[in-house]
Amino acid sequence: MASSIVVVGSLAYDTIKTPKGTAEKTLGGSSNYFSLSASHFAPVKVVGVVGEDYSEQDIKMLEDRKVDVSGIEKASGKTFHWTGEYKDDMNEAITLATDLNVLESFDPKMPEDYKNSEVVFLANIDPVLQLKVLDQVNSPKLVCCDTMNFWIDSKLDDLKKVLQKVDVLLINEGEAMQLSQKSNGIAAAQAIVEMGPKAVVVKRGEYGFALYSEGKYFILPAFPIAEVVDPTGAGDTFAGGFVGHLAKMNCDDRLESLKNACVHGCLMASFTVEGFGVEPQKNLDWAKVEKRLLEYKEVISF
Amino acid sequence: MASSIVVVGSLAYDTIKTPKGTAEKTLGGSSNYFSLSASHFAPVKVVGVVGEDYSEQDIKMLEDRKVDVSGIEKASGKTFHWTGEYKDDMNEAITLATDLNVLESFDPKMPEDYKNSEVVFLANIDPVLQLKVLDQVNSPKLVCCDTMNFWIDSKLDDLKKVLQKVDVLLINEGEAMQLSQKSNGIAAAQAIVEMGPKAVVVKRGEYGFALYSEGKYFILPAFPIAEVVDPTGAGDTFAGGFVGHLAKMNCDDRLESLKNACVHGCLMASFTVEGFGVEPQKNLDWAKVEKRLLEYKEVISF
Repeated sequence: MASSIVVVGSLAYDTIKTPKGTAEKTLGGSSNYFSLSASHFAPVKVVGVVGEDYSEQDIKMLEDRKVDVSGIEKASGKTFHWTGEYKDDMNEAITLATDLNVLESFDPKMPEDYKNSEVVFLANIDPVLQLKVLDQVNSPKLVCCDTMNFWIDSKLDDLKKVLQKVDVLLINEGEAMQLSQKSNGIAAAQAIVEMGPKAVVVKRGEYGFALYSEGKYFILPAFPIAEVVDPTGAGDTFAGGFVGHLAKMNCDDRLESLKNACVHGCLMASFTVEGFGVEPQKNLDWAKVEKRLLEYKEVISF
Repeated sequence: MASSIVVVGSLAYDTIKTPKGTAEKTLGGSSNYFSLSASHFAPVKVVGVVGEDYSEQDIKMLEDRKVDVSGIEKASGKTFHWTGEYKDDMNEAITLATDLNVLESFDPKMPEDYKNSEVVFLANIDPVLQLKVLDQVNSPKLVCCDTMNFWIDSKLDDLKKVLQKVDVLLINEGEAMQLSQKSNGIAAAQAIVEMGPKAVVVKRGEYGFALYSEGKYFILPAFPIAEVVDPTGAGDTFAGGFVGHLAKMNCDDRLESLKNACVHGCLMASFTVEGFGVEPQKNLDWAKVEKRLLEYKEVISF
C-alpha cells in the first residue's frame, strides 16, 4: 500500500492574466494543485486554512478525489487571493497583489490521525509554518519542501533550519541560484545539497527539471506544449506527481526512484499549463497520463 | 566514406568578457568553431575571408585538422572583429562592437573542387551571401543553415528565399520565436517548417535543443556544466557536430539520423563553453567525446 502524504500549503482564489486570456478568482493555491496531482498516486491529507467565501464545492472536489480535508480550517475573513500576470515570458509570473487574508494569522494544527503520515510535503509557505507542521508529524520517512524568493529574502535563517530537516527540496531555477549564490541551476543544485537535503529538484519551467542526488544529475526537458495557456500551479503539480510517486513507492528515495518521480512530476505539470487554474487537473484521468508517458519517452529517445 | 562539407561563415578575432574573465582578440568566427567540430566527423572545406592581420598559425590550425582552407581569401584590411559581453545570464551575448572590416565587401568565390560537395552549411551571415554560396554548389544533397535576429530584422525576404532552399535550419530559440512570431520554441519550430526546411533545430543554450521534423519533436537538455566560462561559439560548435554527423552518415536525414546528429551537436557544444574562444575545441580528442556521450546517456536515462 502506498504511504500517506500530509501537505501544508495554500488554498486560494487566483486572478490570472496571460497572453491567452484572463481567469477571475479561479480556484488555486499550492495545496489544491498538489493534492489533485498527488491523489493519483497515494492518499493525501491537507492542512490549511480557508475563508468564509471558500466554496463548499471546492472542498468537495478534493473529497471526490479521496483527499482528507479534515485538516482544513475555516476562519473568519476571506480566502487567500493572489493576482498575477504572465507577459511574453510564460516562465515568469508577475505578482500584482497578494492578499494573505486568513493566511496571515494561520497557525497550522494537525488532526490526530494525520500525525503518523509517512510523507510530508511542505509547499511554499513561511518556513516558520513549515517547521511548525513538521514538528507535529511523529516520524515521517520522507519530507519534501518547496520555497520561494520571498522567504529566501526575508527568512533565510528559518529556511536553513527547514533545509536541515528535509530529504528533497523542489525549487525554481532562479530561486535555486538565489539561495545558493550560484550562476546556474547545475551549480546551484550541488551547492544546495550541502545545505541539508539529500536531493534537489531544480524546476526549469518549460525546460523541464534537473535532479541532483548521490553526486549525479538527472535532467530532462518538459513535455512539449505548443500552446501554454496558464503556467500557474505547474510547480505544485510537479511536486504532486513527484511526492505522490515516492509515496506510492513506499518512500524509496534511491536515485532510480527519484528519477521516476521527476518524470511523473514533469508529466503531471504538462497538463496544468494547458488551461487556466486547476481546471485541467480536475478533468485528468490516469489513462491520459499513461498515454503522455509513452509520448514523452518518444520525445526524449534516440 | 563520409560526404564532404562546404561551410561559409566568419573567421574572426573576438574580444569577450564573461563573469569568469576576459579574452582579447581571441580566435573565433562561426567557420572556425564549426570546422573544428565538424572535422571530427567528415572532411570540411571553408569559404571565407580574413584580413592581413590574420595569423598563419590560425590557418594552420585548421589545416592540421585536414580542413581545406583553399577557399579562404586574404583581403587587404583587418579581420572581422566582434566584441561582446555576457553578464549574469550566460545564455545571452551583449554585442558591444561589430567591426565587419574585410567581411563588409566579401564576395564569396568557391574553388572548383568545392563545387561537388554533398553538404553545405551556411553559417550565420547575410542571407544574400548564403544564396550566392549555395548557387555555386552543383547539386548538394543536404543544405543546413543558421541565421540571427539582425537578418530577420533587416533582410527577411532574402532569408525566406534561403529557407526555401535548405533542409535544416538551426536557430536560437529567441530568434526562432522572432522569425515565426510564436511565443515559445515548440510552436516556433512547427511554424518554421511551414517556411521551407524539412527540419528545424531550436538551440536552447544551457537547456539543450528541440528538433522538429516529420511532425515529431526530439528534445533533450544540454550536458550539465557547472562552470560555464564562455558560451561564445557553442551554437556553431553544435552545428559542426550536427552537420558533421549527417555528412558522416552520407546525408541520411531521416528522423533517427537527425536525432543522433542533435546529440552529437549538443555534446560538441558542451566542451566549447568550458573555456574561452576555440581553445577547448583545439584540444579536444575523440576519446573525450565518446566518454561524455556515455555520461550524457546516464544523465538523461531512467
